[in-house]
This record gives sequence, structure tokens and C-alpha cells, in this order.
Amino acid sequence: MEEKAARTIEGQPIRCKAAVGREPGEPLIIEEIIVAPPMAREARIKVICSSLCYSDVTFWKIKDPPAIWPRIFGHEAIGIVESVGEDVTEVTKGDMVVPIFLPDCGECVDCKSEKSNLCSKFPFKVSPWMPRYDSSRFTDLNGHIIHHFLFVSSFTEYTVVDIANLTKIHPLVPPNKACLLSCGVSTGVGAAWKAAKVEPGSSVAIFGLGSIGLAVAEGARLCGATKIIGVDVNPDKFEIGKKFGVTDFIQAGGDKSVSQVIIEMTSGGADYCFECVGRASLVHEAYASCRKGWGKTVVLGVDKPGSCLTLNSTEVLCDGKSLIGALFGGLKPKSHVPILLKRYMDKELNLDEFITHEVDFKDINKAFDLLLKGECLRCVIWMDK
Amino acid sequence: MEEKAARTIEGQPIRCKAAVGREPGEPLIIEEIIVAPPMAREARIKVICSSLCYSDVTFWKIKDPPAIWPRIFGHEAIGIVESVGEDVTEVTKGDMVVPIFLPDCGECVDCKSEKSNLCSKFPFKVSPWMPRYDSSRFTDLNGHIIHHFLFVSSFTEYTVVDIANLTKIHPLVPPNKACLLSCGVSTGVGAAWKAAKVEPGSSVAIFGLGSIGLAVAEGARLCGATKIIGVDVNPDKFEIGKKFGVTDFIQAGGDKSVSQVIIEMTSGGADYCFECVGRASLVHEAYASCRKGWGKTVVLGVDKPGSCLTLNSTEVLCDGKSLIGALFGGLKPKSHVPILLKRYMDKELNLDEFITHEVDFKDINKAFDLLLKGECLRCVIWMDK
Repeated sequence: MEEKAARTIEGQPIRCKAAVGREPGEPLIIEEIIVAPPMAREARIKVICSSLCYSDVTFWKIKDPPAIWPRIFGHEAIGIVESVGEDVTEVTKGDMVVPIFLPDCGECVDCKSEKSNLCSKFPFKVSPWMPRYDSSRFTDLNGHIIHHFLFVSSFTEYTVVDIANLTKIHPLVPPNKACLLSCGVSTGVGAAWKAAKVEPGSSVAIFGLGSIGLAVAEGARLCGATKIIGVDVNPDKFEIGKKFGVTDFIQAGGDKSVSQVIIEMTSGGADYCFECVGRASLVHEAYASCRKGWGKTVVLGVDKPGSCLTLNSTEVLCDGKSLIGALFGGLKPKSHVPILLKRYMDKELNLDEFITHEVDFKDINKAFDLLLKGECLRCVIWMDK
Repeated sequence: MEEKAARTIEGQPIRCKAAVGREPGEPLIIEEIIVAPPMAREARIKVICSSLCYSDVTFWKIKDPPAIWPRIFGHEAIGIVESVGEDVTEVTKGDMVVPIFLPDCGECVDCKSEKSNLCSKFPFKVSPWMPRYDSSRFTDLNGHIIHHFLFVSSFTEYTVVDIANLTKIHPLVPPNKACLLSCGVSTGVGAAWKAAKVEPGSSVAIFGLGSIGLAVAEGARLCGATKIIGVDVNPDKFEIGKKFGVTDFIQAGGDKSVSQVIIEMTSGGADYCFECVGRASLVHEAYASCRKGWGKTVVLGVDKPGSCLTLNSTEVLCDGKSLIGALFGGLKPKSHVPILLKRYMDKELNLDEFITHEVDFKDINKAFDLLLKGECLRCVIWMDK
């Protein structure tokens, strides 16, 4: 079949290709869809590339709410503004942008506060609706709605994103690196930098060395932590972890509890502990691994809805520790992501090593296979290759 | 019986009166005991007065470990140094001192750090032993040991306290006010000031308006909080609370959950929430009452050993809140208690209203009755009246 480039006329719907999820756990189907023009405070984006994040896979696997079908997944991405709706001055046609699932309206009390990154004008929800309107901008060729994912939906040649979810970036950043900062890597680096505020010379323990855990290590390294302990069931993760600053490794499942080992290694407990697996029961172990008096435990992993974490109340009272939760690592998308990109361009932040695979859009299902097999950190999916 | 003043000779045992707890829950018995001279890094103190704290009552009621019998209770106190052991330069005979259960050695990494108030040289334990030695300094007239309580034991004319547990204060502070800062009131005021770091203009919710909760209100008022919401089952607490800065009141047990009411009253949740009841299940309600994005929940209440607090892990991840535990409100005894006393002398800190009753030492069991009946905040027990 001869490939046809999508025709784009500002203000008109675009017919283009997208990878549509129609059944939970089934391969995405590349089909033609219609992308409506952007409404007020929205931009239509030509996607350059995406990287596959585990949250895409999680929601692709589940049938029931908060999942919704059919849907276009993809939320770690970069693109070029094709057109903008009314009342948009922040970006213009041709700008390079990173869409980010966490809104940043810039106007509400939270966006204006140094203390919060949770926009209260557009509270984050795993919603199929656009922030300001009641519907997705995608339909199939029969006019039936296709839902979006996390306000981004990047597994499509074109997508429509609210201005609150767009961060403008320098046009010379390599796109396959920049897209990583759209979610997972920023979450990990930010968790060390902004949520925990890791101090130079401190000790850090990271439970789970997937992409987010490795990004925490990278963030802790940038903050000057001198002992960065990785904890994982897979011993191969130590070699991978070393590329991101991991200095010590504990294979989970030994005779001693992980907290006991960490307390011995750090003479009392790590200054900062990060739960990156998404298992509520591990939060207690991370909390127990923290230094009495000032230890901070940061919860980053996503467990099943309804799962509970449990702490001993006497320990909470007597140990002087704190427990923090952070979405997107506590980063404010529009102000902090450009700083991280600058640190990448200045060769301080290691992004290159996160990219273990790259595929063409037509092979998008391979990316899912790779992530499910645990064989990759980030697989970049290029739209035009 | 004719009263005899205890004879004191430095370096010799003192025979004096003490209120000894010999059976759990039974009235204390005033009897003669022997108080050994202070050993190295200890001081022997002539107690002026004590105030009764709920922790005394809690440990007086229980039979099994960590309780131990017989024991001399009392840990909120003030006294004058009678003599010192070897190697003591920090205090000298005649100094006015407040004994504080939380050690502050001044030398360890924690005592030197701004971030911790949990001395690691002498870790706090509900221990019957003196910090540096293996025994109490009290015996009965038959030479049998009488255990101390929280390193202080103030329901006695004389007591021996480790230098790490003594804070020297200005001699002109009224003793019945100063003793309040030995535990409960400092814990509450400190929790607002040092643990939570309450900011001017902020909103605060306090679960439980006993002495500690009221002291949190007083601390929050001093820090400039403008909305201070008290939550209690007893509606009479609002009038009492107003004396300490409480501006709003919620009677627990209504149709709506307390968190729902607080979220409505504060347009989104209180900036700081304090659990002062000592019920692990309330921590979840306090956490739910906190403002998304930056809300802090501070755990101050003492629940039964082994009780657990439970939080929803998705809420922890997505809500950007923090949970903190604090002993002694996060205060460093030797540096922060003198500051609070100065603020009392400068008429900024309200201590007077905490004292609802005063009794003579011989009537010490009345103080227990009053506290058990919920009829008092602090009852001061005078040794020489």
C-alpha cells in the first residue's frame, strides 16, 4: 500500500494514522483516524516520537474502569505544534513541545505556589475527557469516538493537547532524549531533586531498579548523594544501575531483611528511601530502612487501586521520619523540565542510557513485547521512520 | 507524725519522701526512700514541683512490660541542683533545671544536626535504666530497687538525672509554669513550630483538644496560623480551646466525616493536621483532611504498642502530602525550651491557662483522679506545700 502523508489544513480535521487499542491486552491496530482541530486553549501536535512507559502497558492490560475502550495510548512524547486553537499565546505553529500528563495552568494557587505541583484548576485524573471540554478529539472513520489517554495520546501522527499540558522546549534537543522527560525519567530525577531534596553527601536507597528507580539514582547522583543503594530481585540490575550512579546493590530475598542490610551499610539507615516498585507492602520496608531522626521515604510506585500501606504507629511517632508522595517527582512541568533538558545538553544528566531500543511506528507492538519481557528500559517509537 | 526535712550531704545517699507506685492502677504510696548520690555525668535534683502528664497515668495503669514495678513516676518537673557527679560542668549546685525525658547529649551526629532531635548517643527508650549505667538510683529502706520513669522520676523530693536529660533555665521563671515545658506543652507547641513549621496565614486542624492538642493550637497561633480548627467529641472544648487560639470547632461524630467538614471549611483541606488523640485510625482521617499538594500530617498521639496506621497508597502517591512523626514536637530540649520560656516571660506564650489545678505532694493521688475524670489540663504537684 502506498503511504500517503496526512493532509493538514489549520482549522480542519486531519485524517492520519494512529495505533488504536481496541481490546485489552491485544496488539494495537494501526488504522486511519480523524483528529479534530484544536479548540480554545489547545494545540494540535505532529508527534515526532514517543517512548513507551509502563503506565501505557498497565492501562492497556485492564478492561474495566478507569480503563476505557477504544483508546489511543502513549504519553511520553515530543512533537511540533501544527496549529493552535483560540486564545493560545504560549506556543505557536512550529514550536517544539513536550506534552506532559500533569497539568500546569500557571494561574491557580497550586501552580503559583512553590510547594505544590498539583494544578488545582485542572486536577489530574486518569480521565478520558479533555481538561476543558467533555470529549476526546479522536474519531474513527465512522465517526465513533476514540478516547485519549492521560491528556496526551501520542501513538498517533497527530494529537490535540491542552496548553496546560504542554511544555515548550529548545528545538535543538534530540527528540528521542527529550521525550523521556515527558513522564518516567522526570518522575525519578524529580523525586530526588524536588520531592526528597536529596543533599550532597547523603545516602539513598532505591527499591526497584526499573526506569523510574534508575532515574531516581541519576537524580540522587546529580544532587551529590555519595551512597546510592539499589535494591532489586534481579542481580543484573547492578551493572545497569552503575551507569546511573548506583554505588551499592542489595538483591532482595536474602536471609536478612533489606532494611536490616541497609541499616548496616549506612550505619543507621539511608537518609532517603524511594519505593519505585508499586507494592504497598514495600513502603513499610523502605520506611524501616530510613535513618531515624530525619529519614524521608518517597512513594513513587503505582499499586493496584484500593491497596493500602501500613506503618507501625509507635515507630511513626518515635522515629522522626517522614513519608512523602509525589506525582511527576514533585516537578512543575513548565519550569522544571526545561532545566532538566539544559542539564542534559550540558552533559550533566544522563538520558542516553535509558534508550535501549528504537522502533518504527509500524512495529509499535514490538515495544510492548520488549517492555513486558523486561528487556528494555525505554523503547523509542519513531513516527516517520 | 512530725515532718523531718531530708538531710543532704553531697556524695552521700539521701533519705527522703517519694510517691511510689507499687501496683498498677493503685494509689501511689508516699514512703521514705534512699536516693543514691549522682554518678559521673549526673546531677541530684531537689524537685520543686511536677505536673501530671497523661504518660504517667498510662504507664501507671499497665502491669506488663514496658511497665515495671515498683516505680517512681513523674517526668514533667522543675528542680534545683543539689549536687553533681564527676565530670559535670554544664550545671552546678543551685542551678534551676528542667529535666526532660528526651536526651540531648550535644555531641552526637543527631544532636549536632539541625534535622534531628533524637540523640543517638542515648537513644530514647521507655527504659528503667539510667542512660549511662545499669540501674536506678532509688532503693527502699530495705535496699530493694525502685525503678525510675523516663529518666526523670519527679514524684520524689530528690531525684538523680543524667546531664543529657537536664536543661538549665533562668531562675526567675515561675516553677509551676516552667515544669509544663518538660513534656506535654513543649510537645504540642514544638509540633507546630519545629515539626510542622506552620507558616503565617495558614490553616491548622487539631484532632483532640487535650493538653497536647491545645498546646499545638497555642504553637500554631504563635506561628501566625489564621484558622485553627479544633476537633473533639466534647463540645465544651471549644471554649477552652479559644484561650489557646482555636478559631473554629468541629464536634466529631456528626453525619459528615470530619475530613469532609474540614475540606469545606478550608476550601480544600487544612495546611497542617495534627493527630493528638493517640488512635492510629484517626491518622487516616487527619491525612484525608490535609490540603492536596502540600498538606502535612503530624502524628503526636501515643496508641497501644503494635497498632498500625493505614493509608491508601494511591492517595499517598497522587496527593503530594506528607506524614511526619515527632517526639517532643521535634524540639531539641537544651536549645529550644529556653526559647519557649523566654516567650512565656515576654508574654507571648500562654502557659497560665494550662494550669487548672494545684495540689500538695501528700495529695498526689487527687491529681491522678482529676486527670482520669478529664477534669483538668495540668495539675501541678508541689513538693514543699
